[in-house]
Amino acid sequence: VRTGNGYDVHRLVEGDHVTLCGVRIRHDQSLSGHSDADVGFHALTDALLATCGAGDIGDHFPPSDPQWRGAASHIFLSHAKAVVEAKGGRIMNADVSLICEAPKIAPHREAMCAEIGRLLGLERDRVSVKATTNETIGFVGRREGIAAIATASVAFGEDR
Amino acid sequence: VRTGNGYDVHRLVEGDHVTLCGVRIRHDQSLSGHSDADVGFHALTDALLATCGAGDIGDHFPPSDPQWRGAASHIFLSHAKAVVEAKGGRIMNADVSLICEAPKIAPHREAMCAEIGRLLGLERDRVSVKATTNETIGFVGRREGIAAIATASVAFGEDR
Amino acid sequence: VRTGNGYDVHRLVEGDHVTLCGVRIRHDQSLSGHSDADVGFHALTDALLATCGAGDIGDHFPPSDPQWRGAASHIFLSHAKAVVEAKGGRIMNADVSLICEAPKIAPHREAMCAEIGRLLGLERDRVSVKATTNETIGFVGRREGIAAIATASVAFGEDR
Ligand SMILES: [Mg+2]
Ligand SMILES: [Mg+2]
Ligand SMILES: [Mg+2]
Repeated sequence: VRTGNGYDVHRLVEGDHVTLCGVRIRHDQSLSGHSDADVGFHALTDALLATCGAGDIGDHFPPSDPQWRGAASHIFLSHAKAVVEAKGGRIMNADVSLICEAPKIAPHREAMCAEIGRLLGLERDRVSVKATTNETIGFVGRREGIAAIATASVAFGEDR
Repeated sequence: VRTGNGYDVHRLVEGDHVTLCGVRIRHDQSLSGHSDADVGFHALTDALLATCGAGDIGDHFPPSDPQWRGAASHIFLSHAKAVVEAKGGRIMNADVSLICEAPKIAPHREAMCAEIGRLLGLERDRVSVKATTNETIGFVGRREGIAAIATASVAFGEDR
Repeated sequence: VRTGNGYDVHRLVEGDHVTLCGVRIRHDQSLSGHSDADVGFHALTDALLATCGAGDIGDHFPPSDPQWRGAASHIFLSHAKAVVEAKGGRIMNADVSLICEAPKIAPHREAMCAEIGRLLGLERDRVSVKATTNETIGFVGRREGIAAIATASVAFGEDR
């Protein structure tokens, strides 16, 4: 089994919703980015790619490429699954920590986990979404942005 | 084997001690929080819960619940162990990185590892506590708070 | 299989190059630190040590020890490999996320992965280097420093 990490940040700007782990949530700010700025899916995409040394989300989906403007990030996550599986990988689990002062994540956790499970073909107990604030300090605490840390474990045939 | 991550932050305020990974350390500031604010144990609790999609520490121990005021965080960590084991998990290892300018962690590392090992039933070499400063920059560098990043790997029966 | 994490930060100061994951890159700032300040290698060293509870890079290579002044960090990474292998470990994979506004990492990714693979004895697809900016916010976004998050998975004989 091999394990990869992912980290992503997007800035909060004026707006009325954020998309986190595939779920659109009404909010008094929006996340800025070339795609839908879903930090959770971006971090998890990177964690999956990492398990087989397949570069990062920026390699596969250059922000300079206009075709990804406003893209729904499930495209990136599904692509990472395909990359991993093409190399013989079977995803053991997927875990995302969302770090933000707001919105509250708990009411949306099950919808987020269901979406990750659907996209990655994982049972509920192999999918995790957690949340924590940054206790009002740092860039997350000042509501300048939202960060995500992801972990994915993948079993490849040749590994013990 | 499945792997989960955990991240936590607590603010530093006026005070005379911090509790980190179960060890009370004299310090010229204290960590603020509803419980004993042990960022190391909180991050590790989340990492364990993540391995079986069991939500996060805030679900299991709502900060709004007065019974956890000032609680010793070993309660949370032991609970996460029980959750994991109830789902058939066996903890492979537990790792915590403490990020703070002060206090120095090295003199307390063995006590912290012993406490984690005792609570989780792990031999010494399956437990890790590491420390790094943030080189005087960012919220950790300004001594506004202490952060922790944890990783836990758990083997479940049905996994390879 | 056990998994460890590593986190490191070094400050950016006046200068003309940075060394990241063993690769010297021309840049309009340099990283400050006792050794060559390679945050990627430092984080990965910690992640490896964590898999067998072997302390952290600061234990093995105290910054107060003049012999490590300006040291090339591949020394630290190779040492961590030796520690892990002396305990019967076989490294499954190594993953580093570099968090910086600049320099661009993608043009150097293959050289970094080759260097990690060479030092740790890993095939290309067991090595990962990823990069992300911090979207101009926080200490990374202000170009005050560069951070790295690493993950390493190691199989030990007695583990499932
Ligand atoms: Mg992104
Ligand atoms: Mg906490
Ligand atoms: Mg360092």
